[in-house]
Amino acid sequence: MTSPFVSRHIGPDADEQTTMLKAIGYGSVEQLMDAAIPESIRFHGDLDLPAGISEEQTIAELRSIADRNVLATPMIGLGYYNTVTPAVIKRNVLENPAWYTAYTPYQPEISQGRLEALLNFQTMVTDLTGLTTANASMLDEATAVAEAMTLARRSSKSKSNVYAVDADTFPQTLSVLRTRAEPLGIDVVLVDVEGGELPEEFFGLHLQYPGASGAVRDHAALVEAAHAKGALVTVAADLLALTLLRAPGEIGADIAAGTTQRFGVPLGFGGPHAGYLAVRAGLERSLPGRLVGVSKDADGDQAYRLALQTREQHIRREKATSNICTAQVLLAVMASMYAVYHGPAGLRGIAKRVHGHALTLAGSLTAAGIPLTSGAFFDTVTAVVPGRAAEIVEAAAADGVDLLQVDADRVSISADETTTDAHVATVLAAFGAGVSAPAECGARPLARTSDYLTHPVFNTHHSETSMLRYLRKLSDRDYALDRGMIPLGSCTMKLNATTEMEAVTWPEFANIHPFAPSSQTEGYEHLVAQLEAWLAEITGYDAVSVQPNAGSQGELAGLLAIRGYHRSRGEAHRDVCLIPSSAHGTNAASAVMAGMRVVVVACDADGNVDLTDLDAKIAKHRDQLSAIMVTYPSTHGVYEQSIADLCAKVHEAGGQVYVDGANLNALVGYARPGKFGADVSHLNLHKTFCIPHGGGGPGVGPVAVGAHLAEFLPGDPLQQGDHHAVSAAAHGSAGILPISWAYIRMMGPDGLAAATASAVLAANYVAARLREHYPVLYAGENGLVAHECILDLRPITKATGVSVDDVAKRLIDYGFHAPTMSFPVAGTLMVEPTESEDLAELDRFIAAMIAIKGEIDKVAAGEWPAGDNPLANAPHTASSVTADEWTHPYSRSVAGFPEGVDRTAKYWPPVRRIDGAFGDRNLVCSCPSPEAFED
Amino acid sequence: MTSPFVSRHIGPDADEQTTMLKAIGYGSVEQLMDAAIPESIRFHGDLDLPAGISEEQTIAELRSIADRNVLATPMIGLGYYNTVTPAVIKRNVLENPAWYTAYTPYQPEISQGRLEALLNFQTMVTDLTGLTTANASMLDEATAVAEAMTLARRSSKSKSNVYAVDADTFPQTLSVLRTRAEPLGIDVVLVDVEGGELPEEFFGLHLQYPGASGAVRDHAALVEAAHAKGALVTVAADLLALTLLRAPGEIGADIAAGTTQRFGVPLGFGGPHAGYLAVRAGLERSLPGRLVGVSKDADGDQAYRLALQTREQHIRREKATSNICTAQVLLAVMASMYAVYHGPAGLRGIAKRVHGHALTLAGSLTAAGIPLTSGAFFDTVTAVVPGRAAEIVEAAAADGVDLLQVDADRVSISADETTTDAHVATVLAAFGAGVSAPAECGARPLARTSDYLTHPVFNTHHSETSMLRYLRKLSDRDYALDRGMIPLGSCTMKLNATTEMEAVTWPEFANIHPFAPSSQTEGYEHLVAQLEAWLAEITGYDAVSVQPNAGSQGELAGLLAIRGYHRSRGEAHRDVCLIPSSAHGTNAASAVMAGMRVVVVACDADGNVDLTDLDAKIAKHRDQLSAIMVTYPSTHGVYEQSIADLCAKVHEAGGQVYVDGANLNALVGYARPGKFGADVSHLNLHKTFCIPHGGGGPGVGPVAVGAHLAEFLPGDPLQQGDHHAVSAAAHGSAGILPISWAYIRMMGPDGLAAATASAVLAANYVAARLREHYPVLYAGENGLVAHECILDLRPITKATGVSVDDVAKRLIDYGFHAPTMSFPVAGTLMVEPTESEDLAELDRFIAAMIAIKGEIDKVAAGEWPAGDNPLANAPHTASSVTADEWTHPYSRSVAGFPEGVDRTAKYWPPVRRIDGAFGDRNLVCSCPSPEAFED
Repeated sequence: MTSPFVSRHIGPDADEQTTMLKAIGYGSVEQLMDAAIPESIRFHGDLDLPAGISEEQTIAELRSIADRNVLATPMIGLGYYNTVTPAVIKRNVLENPAWYTAYTPYQPEISQGRLEALLNFQTMVTDLTGLTTANASMLDEATAVAEAMTLARRSSKSKSNVYAVDADTFPQTLSVLRTRAEPLGIDVVLVDVEGGELPEEFFGLHLQYPGASGAVRDHAALVEAAHAKGALVTVAADLLALTLLRAPGEIGADIAAGTTQRFGVPLGFGGPHAGYLAVRAGLERSLPGRLVGVSKDADGDQAYRLALQTREQHIRREKATSNICTAQVLLAVMASMYAVYHGPAGLRGIAKRVHGHALTLAGSLTAAGIPLTSGAFFDTVTAVVPGRAAEIVEAAAADGVDLLQVDADRVSISADETTTDAHVATVLAAFGAGVSAPAECGARPLARTSDYLTHPVFNTHHSETSMLRYLRKLSDRDYALDRGMIPLGSCTMKLNATTEMEAVTWPEFANIHPFAPSSQTEGYEHLVAQLEAWLAEITGYDAVSVQPNAGSQGELAGLLAIRGYHRSRGEAHRDVCLIPSSAHGTNAASAVMAGMRVVVVACDADGNVDLTDLDAKIAKHRDQLSAIMVTYPSTHGVYEQSIADLCAKVHEAGGQVYVDGANLNALVGYARPGKFGADVSHLNLHKTFCIPHGGGGPGVGPVAVGAHLAEFLPGDPLQQGDHHAVSAAAHGSAGILPISWAYIRMMGPDGLAAATASAVLAANYVAARLREHYPVLYAGENGLVAHECILDLRPITKATGVSVDDVAKRLIDYGFHAPTMSFPVAGTLMVEPTESEDLAELDRFIAAMIAIKGEIDKVAAGEWPAGDNPLANAPHTASSVTADEWTHPYSRSVAGFPEGVDRTAKYWPPVRRIDGAFGDRNLVCSCPSPEAFED
Repeated sequence: MTSPFVSRHIGPDADEQTTMLKAIGYGSVEQLMDAAIPESIRFHGDLDLPAGISEEQTIAELRSIADRNVLATPMIGLGYYNTVTPAVIKRNVLENPAWYTAYTPYQPEISQGRLEALLNFQTMVTDLTGLTTANASMLDEATAVAEAMTLARRSSKSKSNVYAVDADTFPQTLSVLRTRAEPLGIDVVLVDVEGGELPEEFFGLHLQYPGASGAVRDHAALVEAAHAKGALVTVAADLLALTLLRAPGEIGADIAAGTTQRFGVPLGFGGPHAGYLAVRAGLERSLPGRLVGVSKDADGDQAYRLALQTREQHIRREKATSNICTAQVLLAVMASMYAVYHGPAGLRGIAKRVHGHALTLAGSLTAAGIPLTSGAFFDTVTAVVPGRAAEIVEAAAADGVDLLQVDADRVSISADETTTDAHVATVLAAFGAGVSAPAECGARPLARTSDYLTHPVFNTHHSETSMLRYLRKLSDRDYALDRGMIPLGSCTMKLNATTEMEAVTWPEFANIHPFAPSSQTEGYEHLVAQLEAWLAEITGYDAVSVQPNAGSQGELAGLLAIRGYHRSRGEAHRDVCLIPSSAHGTNAASAVMAGMRVVVVACDADGNVDLTDLDAKIAKHRDQLSAIMVTYPSTHGVYEQSIADLCAKVHEAGGQVYVDGANLNALVGYARPGKFGADVSHLNLHKTFCIPHGGGGPGVGPVAVGAHLAEFLPGDPLQQGDHHAVSAAAHGSAGILPISWAYIRMMGPDGLAAATASAVLAANYVAARLREHYPVLYAGENGLVAHECILDLRPITKATGVSVDDVAKRLIDYGFHAPTMSFPVAGTLMVEPTESEDLAELDRFIAAMIAIKGEIDKVAAGEWPAGDNPLANAPHTASSVTADEWTHPYSRSVAGFPEGVDRTAKYWPPVRRIDGAFGDRNLVCSCPSPEAFED
């Protein structure tokens, strides 16, 4: 029996599907799919997945899985701390579709709310770190630190390949650093920063502040020494500690990196959390990741947008310096709002409370004759208990508190926002100690004297009422899936069902430390194992790892698996990665990071991989051939007939086939990459498997491989073995995996296949209806597209001057988020309607596109001048349409209420078209003063 | 230590309070309170309440209380059924402040979203019941049925006082019917509708359909017989059953009443749920409660508003026919959205599934030789098991299923939406029976043949994506506390904190049947007992009952306690209730319902009770004096000095003093009615104790009494003893009591008092700042108001024609909800800012009021004509301000973006000013066809 959820997830009902099929000339979805998908790759069986169940049954199953996780008090530390998510933020951000169903703010005019929140985030990070420019979040602390390493490599004048790393660094950070350093030929050299020697030459120095042991050290001299060598210094700093301690920027650090997890973001067994990365002046244009900046709109009003986009969104392929293209926006918003809600005094109060508990621990342990490894600390103390570490950790665990056993002789204890006197007493009891007077803290000479978070936004919204309204005001400025369709090609903006989201905020999933003892995480381990098995079945691979916490990390993990495979066979020289010219820029960037050389393969006029050129490239690089990376269906939204051939050719030459799973929404239930010739894929759970985009993250990018590559999958970052880790936590962003688990559990094999077919039907319906108005670029067999279609605006632009930008912005006036602009082909729009949009919404979009074509025709006919027409001036704000003076050759009604717009429910963008270049020339990446907004 | 929550709840921080105190000339809040509150009533001690704790600690305590409730499978029936709240509705209505913090839609222009939802509700009820007009919900089924009884009394031509009631009626309904009948001199006579005789004469007949036993009977002949006697017939019908069974309207019923709980509204141990009441054509103007109707706005566009308001909002005091002034809007919205989401086919499918389980139960029991009381049923079967009932119920309970033990020989089983085959098997096993073939249903001749829910709204939003957007679209049309201040005098629109709301949707609170065995409800009993004790301490009374599920029911319960007291002392003749002329209309209506005669006491020029007139009225009615009902602080927002005197005078004459607790937000921690002379009060938990208004309900109106009245508090409706029940469930709307519990728990005694003082400070600040622009009516000692202030617009209206309506509507353009209009004094605005608004928001409101005064001055000066100015034309929609033609003498900017309005975050009302009278003349109270919206 099909789950009742399937008809909730899929927009068009049976009648609507019949209408749509009729429009494209097919009698049934099966006929359509038979015609669209090459038989050579077609999967005709039934996926071996449990039958779909109802939403209630799914919640009940998740409940029983959750109950297998044990809620303890984690005082383990290592960069993960219990925290209180303010209820107003939890409900109105993390549980609010207006925030979590939003897309990356590439259309800044309809993203001002989250851009402001991200600017707050950047301001928070720069203020606390004492640096100049912070980006809008990183995937986690370990990858942020790895990006800092490569940034240092690029920016350092030193010719050395040595990266000097503080030995008192979090072990998972070290693991990821090693993973990322090795393919790039960087030598990671550990340094005992307490009295130890620095290497002779090195291009960068990494310091942990406070150290993993809890020690707070004055790094000023080391920084000076490093600078003398031409090296750049990164400080991985705890932001809460920085409310009390001298900032990295104040001791001369070039870069700061870390996590903002403890600012109200649940532990989630390791993620998702927002990492951060900040740099001193002069390095801002080398900063990877997304950067929000201030610019101005067509009226000259202040407006926010992603700054320096050419640097990151349109990743410079093989010249790329990072493959990062996702941030952790939803979590960054939460962390920034935590700072907004508490303000500087509130944060300082929390930090003092945390530090106070550490002082009591230190004083009491010392009083009991137990020595500590350091007398200067913030929240963590490490006790020296020769031979007794295991028993002490066990005793505390028996009383519900988890400590960190560093080794047989040392135990670390980290206090956090939720620590109480009772917890402290429990911990001390496990050591056989009582509560004594607090210690004097040796970190006092490093006390912070500078101000932070002085901007009004951090000093205004301290009542819940004010906070609630601030959140509402920001989200009201934005357009997310809860308002209407976001037909973004290649991004699969489909339903993020409430039932899928529910378990994420249950304490049994939210409040589990990534390094909690395995006896407390059975539920998570079960859920992860089941999800990995289901994803393997769906993709036809043999093994899956959910560790990569973004698609980019999945790519890297997949390529590293290929690299490991070749090396294991004595073929380390295989380092050429073939990449079609139509590929997403990330592919090439990942290949470079995996130590490969990129060789581009041409595409033919139909947008398919040019098999002749492929043959030529294979022939030329046969002995060095490591892999080919292709996207399937292609980035052109077409089921290429030649995919099976392509796989065979590469295999024949000893290469491995990497199929980018970005477009898996066109395959599930109908074709399995692992069975049609590919060796490895990464998936995007935030596309096909319903994890919401969160305004630009979290993403999850599991990597799936054939059996021969299984041993090269990422490993546990706490195990310092051969297995490389690509994220700080073993299961990456485990906290949101219940979403994809629930989706698969509810849909069942038939529901999943039905979703795929509906997505393909919707794309072909849109293509068929719009073809006479806009040329549809590329099609596969029988003139069919896969799950998306490219509308070619280049002839229009050439004839009329109306650009793809103009159409995208005009769609805002009609109440839509634009399709993907100029990817993969400049001057086009790529439309992916997904299966979740019902016929009414599809028709509303089609009608808007047709109406816009009518407007273009008026420009073409000279009825409206090229420089002053509803397209050129789009989007129109309420403020501009109600201006007292109106000089345009079209009416106010046409501007604000074009055909089909509901006059009682109009979404008004808060700003007019934004001048991105102005902002790039005048880079401002933290909150402007309120005066700056005055006319 | 003060809980950190206190500073989250109270808007102004210490600095802001200092600024505000300065403006009114006081050095501290304590000085202010000393000056404002009469020493004669002042409470100087500390409330004996636990100290406030943090939000996290509160959640932890609630968690442990919740864990003392046991989640079983309730198959008890009696009008309460397990149901699945669609997750999209739960998260986006019940857990969404845009819905739950809204006020009653008295300002219809900014309430179109919930008005549409309520119109859907009315349409759903009329369609399913086959009647013409339904109101926008009742408090529960029992009170709806009681209102139907009095409606029948008013509308019947029969002179009889007999109300004939189906003996197969739910026992709790019967209990409330008896409570309500007795003071009105109505005789409730039970009738065996199966073959029994009807009374000789009767004014009304009540039928339960299906019966409490589950029996489905053809009532057509009884209806005819009743009509022949001039009696009106009410059918209490199950809406889900009506998807399969002939509708009450189709068998000639005049009235239908019942509950919509099983349409997706959690059980909540008895509530809140939306009751319903529908009538045939000709009775619509006698319908109590709120009625939404279609009218048009100033542009002639369709718009919704409360219809026939004079009939209900401005209750006609002693001539009132009902004291109902609250609905259950939030729950009605949920139930209506359940119908929107499932549609007619979905509902019918659910009903068939439920019925199928009942058929299997019936077939299997019969096959096992167990007779049933009826062969025609929908969801409930009653088995005859002589002497074995208790053991069977116990056996099922041991397997997690609760059944209803009717008596020693009969067991009832009710299937519902959540029933599974496994539940059925468990039940049968408890009877010692196996699963056999389903029975043939004897109700088939009564099968429904007519259509229902044919309007497009019930046939469109069946995917979650579409549903989510519909909910967002509607809520975006409305203005709630999450957008800005709602300074409604006498309504106390303060923060409804997220932490307070959280436990409401936990299954352990949400999914408990009101008649579950007490072994399963320990958590609830503990919470209720604790809350009642705290409320008693706060008010200074000796006993509290939380049973009344609205303020109106609390009033009735309080007056019935007084009535019971006098009767117990042989003074049944005491039936005069003194009510000041300034009282809220409900007071008088409640007195009439409690069988009292209302005598009005005059007020003096300062708005205080005229003690001379009071003396005169007491003298005149001394021997009949039952009670006086006064509001304190007075409805004029003033601490009357004479309150202690007044109490003494009434007591001296043998009367009881009822203090209406509507304004308790001005007293908590500073004065206790139970200690300054009152005998009884009702409270409004949805005002002072933070239960959100939900757009017009749920309310909760506990009654608090002195020790001598304790024995007359409402009793358990399932116990047919002396204690009258005023609601269907023992603890009324128990499901939302965790909200008030959490508020008191977090604030602690000092926090509660601080909130009171802050509320009084805010009101006096607003009064002081606005006094030079608008006269402030009434003040107490030292020229101070209590927690609200009345701005007198009558001189302005007289001089300029600008009305209080104009100012209220113009405030919408400025981004505000209007203060209370023309209550208690026509032509005025009553402002209650509450403690939760910070200084910035207070100042924004003050600035808007001053700017509006400037606009009035321009009208006065003739700069703008009286009929065409921003006030007369307010509110301005986006559509009207962007009109291609603009003929007004003021600019578009003035219209749409008056001073202080953020151009990037403007709230636009969806319609212009609504013509209520037009709608009343052309009454349309169900969804208009889409064509009706065309121009």
